[in-house]
Amino acid sequence: MTKNILLMEGPDAKGLVFHVTEVLFKNNCNIMKQDEFVSPSGHFFMRTDFESDTEFDAEVVISDLRKRVPNEDTKFKVNPAKKKDIVILCTKEHHCLSDLLTRYHFGELNANILAVVSNYDKLEPFVSKFDIPYHFVSHEGLTREAHEQELLKVLGKYNPQYLVLAKYMRILTPNFVAKYSNRIVNIHHSFLPAFIGANPYRQAFERGVKIIGATAHFVNNNLDEGPIIAQNIKEVDHRFTAKDMSREGKDVEKTVLTKALKLVFSDSVFIYGNKTIIL
Amino acid sequence: MTKNILLMEGPDAKGLVFHVTEVLFKNNCNIMKQDEFVSPSGHFFMRTDFESDTEFDAEVVISDLRKRVPNEDTKFKVNPAKKKDIVILCTKEHHCLSDLLTRYHFGELNANILAVVSNYDKLEPFVSKFDIPYHFVSHEGLTREAHEQELLKVLGKYNPQYLVLAKYMRILTPNFVAKYSNRIVNIHHSFLPAFIGANPYRQAFERGVKIIGATAHFVNNNLDEGPIIAQNIKEVDHRFTAKDMSREGKDVEKTVLTKALKLVFSDSVFIYGNKTIIL
Amino acid sequence: MTKNILLMEGPDAKGLVFHVTEVLFKNNCNIMKQDEFVSPSGHFFMRTDFESDTEFDAEVVISDLRKRVPNEDTKFKVNPAKKKDIVILCTKEHHCLSDLLTRYHFGELNANILAVVSNYDKLEPFVSKFDIPYHFVSHEGLTREAHEQELLKVLGKYNPQYLVLAKYMRILTPNFVAKYSNRIVNIHHSFLPAFIGANPYRQAFERGVKIIGATAHFVNNNLDEGPIIAQNIKEVDHRFTAKDMSREGKDVEKTVLTKALKLVFSDSVFIYGNKTIIL
Amino acid sequence: MTKNILLMEGPDAKGLVFHVTEVLFKNNCNIMKQDEFVSPSGHFFMRTDFESDTEFDAEVVISDLRKRVPNEDTKFKVNPAKKKDIVILCTKEHHCLSDLLTRYHFGELNANILAVVSNYDKLEPFVSKFDIPYHFVSHEGLTREAHEQELLKVLGKYNPQYLVLAKYMRILTPNFVAKYSNRIVNIHHSFLPAFIGANPYRQAFERGVKIIGATAHFVNNNLDEGPIIAQNIKEVDHRFTAKDMSREGKDVEKTVLTKALKLVFSDSVFIYGNKTIIL
Repeated sequence: MTKNILLMEGPDAKGLVFHVTEVLFKNNCNIMKQDEFVSPSGHFFMRTDFESDTEFDAEVVISDLRKRVPNEDTKFKVNPAKKKDIVILCTKEHHCLSDLLTRYHFGELNANILAVVSNYDKLEPFVSKFDIPYHFVSHEGLTREAHEQELLKVLGKYNPQYLVLAKYMRILTPNFVAKYSNRIVNIHHSFLPAFIGANPYRQAFERGVKIIGATAHFVNNNLDEGPIIAQNIKEVDHRFTAKDMSREGKDVEKTVLTKALKLVFSDSVFIYGNKTIIL
Repeated sequence: MTKNILLMEGPDAKGLVFHVTEVLFKNNCNIMKQDEFVSPSGHFFMRTDFESDTEFDAEVVISDLRKRVPNEDTKFKVNPAKKKDIVILCTKEHHCLSDLLTRYHFGELNANILAVVSNYDKLEPFVSKFDIPYHFVSHEGLTREAHEQELLKVLGKYNPQYLVLAKYMRILTPNFVAKYSNRIVNIHHSFLPAFIGANPYRQAFERGVKIIGATAHFVNNNLDEGPIIAQNIKEVDHRFTAKDMSREGKDVEKTVLTKALKLVFSDSVFIYGNKTIIL
Repeated sequence: MTKNILLMEGPDAKGLVFHVTEVLFKNNCNIMKQDEFVSPSGHFFMRTDFESDTEFDAEVVISDLRKRVPNEDTKFKVNPAKKKDIVILCTKEHHCLSDLLTRYHFGELNANILAVVSNYDKLEPFVSKFDIPYHFVSHEGLTREAHEQELLKVLGKYNPQYLVLAKYMRILTPNFVAKYSNRIVNIHHSFLPAFIGANPYRQAFERGVKIIGATAHFVNNNLDEGPIIAQNIKEVDHRFTAKDMSREGKDVEKTVLTKALKLVFSDSVFIYGNKTIIL
Repeated sequence: MTKNILLMEGPDAKGLVFHVTEVLFKNNCNIMKQDEFVSPSGHFFMRTDFESDTEFDAEVVISDLRKRVPNEDTKFKVNPAKKKDIVILCTKEHHCLSDLLTRYHFGELNANILAVVSNYDKLEPFVSKFDIPYHFVSHEGLTREAHEQELLKVLGKYNPQYLVLAKYMRILTPNFVAKYSNRIVNIHHSFLPAFIGANPYRQAFERGVKIIGATAHFVNNNLDEGPIIAQNIKEVDHRFTAKDMSREGKDVEKTVLTKALKLVFSDSVFIYGNKTIIL
């Protein structure tokens, strides 16, 4: 028995669900779970979890699907249901990182952490407890571009499927982002789009909000404007200083990042323009 | 164009989704939304929203489905997508009732409120503002059975699809429940199964809980043990008396009841043993 | 027995709590609840609920307090614990209004609704069920200033302590706001400061957020930037259109407005710069 | 400057707040935060955070207080504002433990973890990463009493102020509990009082609830019936198996335990009968 996930998206048309279910049926695949969505603009998305025996050949299935849905704007992809390879980038804060390392250590993360990369050496002693390579790539004295070249060299060794920015506090250039297009997940410490940019907890304190939040999103070229994957919030009041908000917000940040990664690593997240469709 | 909902449940089998999608496709029906679930015990549930032209004949579709899925344990039902007819039962508390009446008044309830029935006359002046018949059926001096006979007489005139117990504070006999089997929705003012029975806020106060809740459920013959449709909660603390909990809990109660009714009236709720499957 | 609330604010100093408790003690007042807060900038706030016998004279107490705390930057106010007089302004949406009217009708609002004023006549039939005056003051063909003059004429008859903007969809001029300085409560249908301005649900939809919210705040001269009193949120996902968000958001709006008004009408909210302190 | 916390409880009486504030004022103590509560039964609780210079003598303050409040049923205690000494007990599950160890490692726990004690050796490799003593005290072949004697021997070496049961899956005898009366905090994996006893997630699954929860409480002699400190919840639906609930519930458990410990270790929790008062 093998388990796979069929991801499909394209222009909506009558009979799409029927075509897919028939092709899978005729290829001896058993659908475990199927979810679809049609956007108001008429774009169709479908995620299908299915089981099949060992003879299963993804290329045959995709070829059969293509015959039934010849429109080339429709894309099919079959992913094996297995752990993703990831590299984590961080700076000095540990809370998201330590949550991911602990889950990984106990086999509860749907990913293999290949390495941790940071522009500081502060978290190296902690990461080393978990027998995961730590790469300290200082940005001191380097241009942003030169620093990113160093990062890319390190990342190149690991060839990760996803980069996770677990409180990596530097802006990435479009050139870097393009190398991992739609494969970088960031956690931003505000309830986006409120408080874009630096020091969101300070901004929240100044504004006197009664709820703070965190947002996990894909990184694109516009700072803090990539497709949102997950958000969560926490109530605060006038007694919270900016520092209190920052401290209390950390629990929200790690919860949101964990939730988003669970969705991304199970191939549940489609990116559509500036939004995510989660099936 | 007509809109209908196909409800299907029965033993799981390979190809069920395929059979249904093919039959709908061949009957010129366009699937808008389809959700399915297979229980751990192997029971299959599917809810399909679809549009069709005016020629649509539900009997033809069901007959075609039956040919493809001959297993008689599998049940098919096609419901038109339209408002349900309901009667509301209440006692003296207004909060759930007034929320439903207001939504109904402004066309925001997916149901027609045919009448309100109560064992007290207290809420009559309020209900009369909304031009809805109010039936005061006192239980004074009557056995439970005799009182229910009176209620059934009133209900018989309206032939409602669902009864909504909007804080109706009397226990119903199995005989009464059987007349509206799986069609009575109740709101219980605790986070079931905590605090079954009378005075749940008093019980919550005595226990010193930090969260109170409310539960909307179908009524069966075991008090407060019918299939749960929706639940929600509110944080409390030591400053709340039992009376405070009761007052604050009312907002949770009406939110939960509204949510449950929205699900039930859109044919999204399957009852399976003592549980609900919500698709 | 009379119940009163002492509100005090000013520069922090050693012994303030002591002075107040001693003065109340010596005036035979029994403190039921006392909450204080000192801002990081050293501003002291205290709210004291107390009971006293019928001899109680607020002026004597304030005079005694002034002797102990002669700093004139410190302000004292004694409010009787009783319902506030309010006027509600609305436009066409009923959900916040109907929630307030229903609570008022059943004696559950800590305020007397003197009148409802709207720039449309749409909600008049509903309001008239509750025997509350409805004033239709159309803005058609009037400048903003001229329309506000008409509003002020109506409001002048009622002399309300607070104005509640229950989805009043027009911007108020500084001149109008100054007439009810710190006494106008608005409900904004977004999680401020996200989505300031018009059509926040449309903006939320375009941004693809996973959580929407509502914010109750005092109105000042900067649109949507007044001191925030309460906020709450609701999870949404890609299936929500802007219209769905608007519909579902209404329940959040009315919950948040009700919560904020409960705090304001119990004299629990201090305004400090652009923030609220809630004791 | 030293920081201390005054804890006071006893029968309510007129002037208590006044007496305390005057005594602190005259002893040159500056109140930072003061919260009080009077139970419906007339029991008074007050927690006062205060600063004082190095001359501060807790005994003098308590003696002064006693003169003003001679009623011996009133208890005063002055605790220095510093980290508590704790020992953690666990069995095989790591999630609460690893959260506490990580927070401790980074200096974010208001406690010193003196040791971890378990009836299994499973978590020893993980704990050893943090340089904290791990004591494997197997219960195999021992009566409950004999096992507890072994535990008490280990605990005796450390003399902890609090024991934290971070998923310690064994029932404690009254004899053991008496040794750490009101000083044992447990995390129970249900929304108490729902699902008391074993396998609460299995029970929740069987009942078909839509919300699961966790409860942190002090341990007394009645299983799962000690005073509740904190609770939190998570929404579930029909797709969750008992195992899914268990996995997802772990995040709630660790959040709730962390929250409860933060309150307990800051001397914010009074125990009153079977309830907690949190100031």
